[in-house]
Amino acid sequence: MVQMLLSRKAACNAHGQDSSYFLGWEEYEKNPYDPDTNPTGIIQMGLAENQALADFMGQLRGNKVELEWRNLVLTAGSTSANETLIFCLAEPGEAFLLPTPYYPGFDRDLKWRTGADIVPIRCSSSNGFRITKRAVEKAYRQARKQSLRVKGVLVTNPSNPLGTSLTGGEIRTLLDFALAKDVHLISDEIYAGTAFAGSGGGYVSVLEVMQGHPLHSDLAGRVHVVYSLSKDLGLPGFRVGALYSGNAAVVAAATKMSSFGLVSSQTQYLLAALLSDRDFTARYVAENKRRIAERHGRLVEGLRRAGVECLESDAGLFCWVDMRPLLLADTFEAEMELWRKVVYEVGLNISPGSSCHCGEPGWFRLCFANMTADTLDVALRRLQDFVASSGRGGGRHPATDGRPRGPIRLARWMMMGLSSSCERGY
Amino acid sequence: MVQMLLSRKAACNAHGQDSSYFLGWEEYEKNPYDPDTNPTGIIQMGLAENQALADFMGQLRGNKVELEWRNLVLTAGSTSANETLIFCLAEPGEAFLLPTPYYPGFDRDLKWRTGADIVPIRCSSSNGFRITKRAVEKAYRQARKQSLRVKGVLVTNPSNPLGTSLTGGEIRTLLDFALAKDVHLISDEIYAGTAFAGSGGGYVSVLEVMQGHPLHSDLAGRVHVVYSLSKDLGLPGFRVGALYSGNAAVVAAATKMSSFGLVSSQTQYLLAALLSDRDFTARYVAENKRRIAERHGRLVEGLRRAGVECLESDAGLFCWVDMRPLLLADTFEAEMELWRKVVYEVGLNISPGSSCHCGEPGWFRLCFANMTADTLDVALRRLQDFVASSGRGGGRHPATDGRPRGPIRLARWMMMGLSSSCERGY
Repeated sequence: MVQMLLSRKAACNAHGQDSSYFLGWEEYEKNPYDPDTNPTGIIQMGLAENQALADFMGQLRGNKVELEWRNLVLTAGSTSANETLIFCLAEPGEAFLLPTPYYPGFDRDLKWRTGADIVPIRCSSSNGFRITKRAVEKAYRQARKQSLRVKGVLVTNPSNPLGTSLTGGEIRTLLDFALAKDVHLISDEIYAGTAFAGSGGGYVSVLEVMQGHPLHSDLAGRVHVVYSLSKDLGLPGFRVGALYSGNAAVVAAATKMSSFGLVSSQTQYLLAALLSDRDFTARYVAENKRRIAERHGRLVEGLRRAGVECLESDAGLFCWVDMRPLLLADTFEAEMELWRKVVYEVGLNISPGSSCHCGEPGWFRLCFANMTADTLDVALRRLQDFVASSGRGGGRHPATDGRPRGPIRLARWMMMGLSSSCERGY
Repeated sequence: MVQMLLSRKAACNAHGQDSSYFLGWEEYEKNPYDPDTNPTGIIQMGLAENQALADFMGQLRGNKVELEWRNLVLTAGSTSANETLIFCLAEPGEAFLLPTPYYPGFDRDLKWRTGADIVPIRCSSSNGFRITKRAVEKAYRQARKQSLRVKGVLVTNPSNPLGTSLTGGEIRTLLDFALAKDVHLISDEIYAGTAFAGSGGGYVSVLEVMQGHPLHSDLAGRVHVVYSLSKDLGLPGFRVGALYSGNAAVVAAATKMSSFGLVSSQTQYLLAALLSDRDFTARYVAENKRRIAERHGRLVEGLRRAGVECLESDAGLFCWVDMRPLLLADTFEAEMELWRKVVYEVGLNISPGSSCHCGEPGWFRLCFANMTADTLDVALRRLQDFVASSGRGGGRHPATDGRPRGPIRLARWMMMGLSSSCERGY
């Protein structure tokens, strides 16, 4: 049944991989030649090892779910993993529902080459931008009104740009919706390792909630997780993404599609060595979370001194900032006017809520982890001065000890001195 | 005019990259923050350097053409470069013409996700599988008969699977066709550095022929070159591909699409260091060609002793082998029967011509570079025994000095001990 929900691309064999050319390679692998042990055999091919990454993903989920490495497909970054899933699940003109605000890159990643569509699930500040059954069903009806067939829901958990983790209740709502409407659920969990509140924070993976769901086996083929090491290990330059799916046809099609964006051998080699050291990764993630929490506190506190509040959050490398008091009018035009001032006059690159398809003007995403603490303090001083000059808030400068620190420093040695163009990505 | 020939994906702005989110990043780059020199600025981003690769590509073309690094887009392997070009140039249901035999992976790479179609240009052994104006125009008419709009021609030069370089005359035929029919020409030149005959061999790049064409400026926007380091430097595991185009809209769209398969930072770093040592790369390519020529000779000679002939070739890591005398009938069924015998009984993975859409039964592609010389000798002995037992050829064993050598050895240190899954790719 779930097979029928896939795209023709995933379901058919038009990819040519079943031609005798490729079948020959398979025989090659079944009976490998070795001059000593198998002199009549064919040849040995090397295969990438996904076990280390599956273990690491389990570790990040508090070892409450065990990930099967055969369900994991490596991709050149999560951008590619998301697009691959859409290619596998939707035809051109079919739609996925996304809660707003959502990461602006999704308009490119999910729609551009696949021809699929996005219909927003309208969330609002009235309940802290939480996903409700009502909002999801409204989006579904909206899609039907536009004659769009809905193939699934895609969420980011923790959320980019909100910095909040989905509650177990929200995830159950989404799982029940997927069952009720016979659609898929993609959970992009690339910020899983940044959940800094308490031990593991409020973050819980869709895989864990699904495991406890009474209709677990009906869900297995329609739940897909996207992952990446860019945020959790500070390795965007490595271009290591992955998709995890309990749907064998999706895994098979995505594996074939991974030819369009493979992770290089030497990166895989380095990665396997890095991730197999569980003590190191555990300490790394713990220290990273500690620093993110510290930096997050510094930003929230600095903004508060300027009279600006943030949505309460527990994850991510950014805050969702309520600048509604600084708007000259309750409109998106006023939001863009404020944004232009902040970029061109104050000198801070922040993302306006409208670029994230937020339904309410006045919200902005501020990143705090891609700079030194000193630079963050410069940014906060500038913002405080700006708010003070606009006569709508405080303006005191936050204390600074002058020493640069932060999560990025810890990761930098791995990036071998190259700042990556993909930092632009998220 | 050429703009109008692009796909809607390449021509429109639906990729969302022009939203304020991305515009903010651009401002960021125009006015970068530095605590000392530009304390009022925004921030500095790192960019990948394409210059080294453009220089290397020029070097491989005998420095007769100068490549503009701004026209170069890095991709995670040439598989991705080819697909990206099709996404940029064709709508679903539009067609590219490809001379047969062609690389079997193209059915997946060019058609699967793009929805584009391939119409074969039928080449035959009667003229050594050369491309003629007549064959190209016949394919064009065939496409029209199938109601397919033709958007271009795609060739491999040197050819995979033939191992032959296109002549200047063939390339001029293709350029004139592109002008006459107002279509594109994609030249996949990933085997450029394997052209071993004489100095530079018979290989000449489409870029060089185009440079000497009287309508050069009309051609610039419709000629696109695909490149990769997988074959020429023996680095398939690096996943470094590129496309080179004189069409600014294609370069812009492809750059945006490269988000789906970026080359990792540490690979770019290593690559820039490697390629900027021109003495090293010149010596490497020369030695590699010498070894390929030697290995090629060993295969051709060994086959000849078995009574089997190859198409005369001057490039590539394989030969196009004429096994027609071994067929039990002049049919593709007989070809598959022979192929099954060779794979399952003789124990050699070779590619049957039918998987390359060859129009004549009995041709096979044999790779000679992905094994030691000893293993090649084992393969040749098996084949000689098989031919002898079938009563259709010789059966003498070739001489062997017992020492493993070959082009792959030279490259192996760079691959850091990992055999790459992408060796499966070509």
